[in-house]
Amino acid sequence: LALIIMRISVLKLFMQLGGEQISSIGRGICVLLGISLEDTHKEIEHMVRKILNVRVFEDESGKHWSKSVMDKQYEVLCVSQFTLQCILKGNKPDYHMAMPAEQAEPFYNNFLEHLKKAYKPELIKDGKFGAYMQVNIQNDGPVTIELESPAATMDPKQLTKLEKQQQRKEKTRTKAPSESSRERNAPRNKDDPSASSGAEGDVSSEREP
Amino acid sequence: LALIIMRISVLKLFMQLGGEQISSIGRGICVLLGISLEDTHKEIEHMVRKILNVRVFEDESGKHWSKSVMDKQYEVLCVSQFTLQCILKGNKPDYHMAMPAEQAEPFYNNFLEHLKKAYKPELIKDGKFGAYMQVNIQNDGPVTIELESPAATMDPKQLTKLEKQQQRKEKTRTKAPSESSRERNAPRNKDDPSASSGAEGDVSSEREP
Repeated sequence: LALIIMRISVLKLFMQLGGEQISSIGRGICVLLGISLEDTHKEIEHMVRKILNVRVFEDESGKHWSKSVMDKQYEVLCVSQFTLQCILKGNKPDYHMAMPAEQAEPFYNNFLEHLKKAYKPELIKDGKFGAYMQVNIQNDGPVTIELESPAATMDPKQLTKLEKQQQRKEKTRTKAPSESSRERNAPRNKDDPSASSGAEGDVSSEREP
Repeated sequence: LALIIMRISVLKLFMQLGGEQISSIGRGICVLLGISLEDTHKEIEHMVRKILNVRVFEDESGKHWSKSVMDKQYEVLCVSQFTLQCILKGNKPDYHMAMPAEQAEPFYNNFLEHLKKAYKPELIKDGKFGAYMQVNIQNDGPVTIELESPAATMDPKQLTKLEKQQQRKEKTRTKAPSESSRERNAPRNKDDPSASSGAEGDVSSEREP
């Protein structure tokens, strides 16, 4: 799991520029969540705890980095963001390490459920999974923090990273199932109004390594 | 160097909520830049090339991930963001790995100069270094990509990470100059209107491990 947490004054989600608003929060945090092929449900609990407890707010006396979103009873807005699993091949983003949408969507919903259970359901907001949106983030500070899942921060990180690279190479060479599912999954971005001629063939080909 | 790149419809910087607008761009990318203690000027050129060439835009036919900000002649807005060098100690962000402001500011300005030289100066915008701002990001997609500097992506990454951890431990134990300068540097956030009682003593103590 790759997470980006931003401290927020206001956050609004729209389906398109100047279009329908689908979600919003006031003060709180925005969580961008990138789910990788290797992520397991075990990591969710740890990440939920970090999100709710990381101290990005000041206390009543103005002391920075002393209160969490939960301490302040502020809101959390989550957006699934597979581009956080990007690996650059030259200058081209490659997303084969991202979990395909058909698995990532239930994973993401499970993550949201954990977050609601650990906090208050009414303070957890959400976007529309996989949809093309305009995410209007008023970053307060700015304060932006990257979090890694425990699998990536434990001692054998070195090994894990190397393993990932090797697995990726294998996948690229052998066209493993994950890759073909990734291609099925490609039209995820077909809503993109700018992708007028976004035929599936085009989209899948542009995800080729 | 830790970078976050976001694809932008509109981006506006304000000195405070509802306050004076200090910078803005239309379509383009937002670059949040976290400079670490170990970063050297050598890395700047590589990162500038990546920022300008990473393909986050679609082409005329709507094909995704095929055009860079430079291809499209869009704008770039950079914001220095030391919180990207955060290390969590429990739930508390620790910023001893971030380059202290007195070195980070010339480093950042050099980075901006390289960016302007490699592109067009008039298409590179900036915030106010070290200031407390409201960064209003309209993330288009959303599309958010993390980039690491070459030092962190080369083979000896494993070693580098371990070295960092060890160095950090040393620093914490021995109160190396970098730490004391970090404390001098702490009032960076004193502009924070919420930090009403933000006496220097308070601020430096909250940066203690």
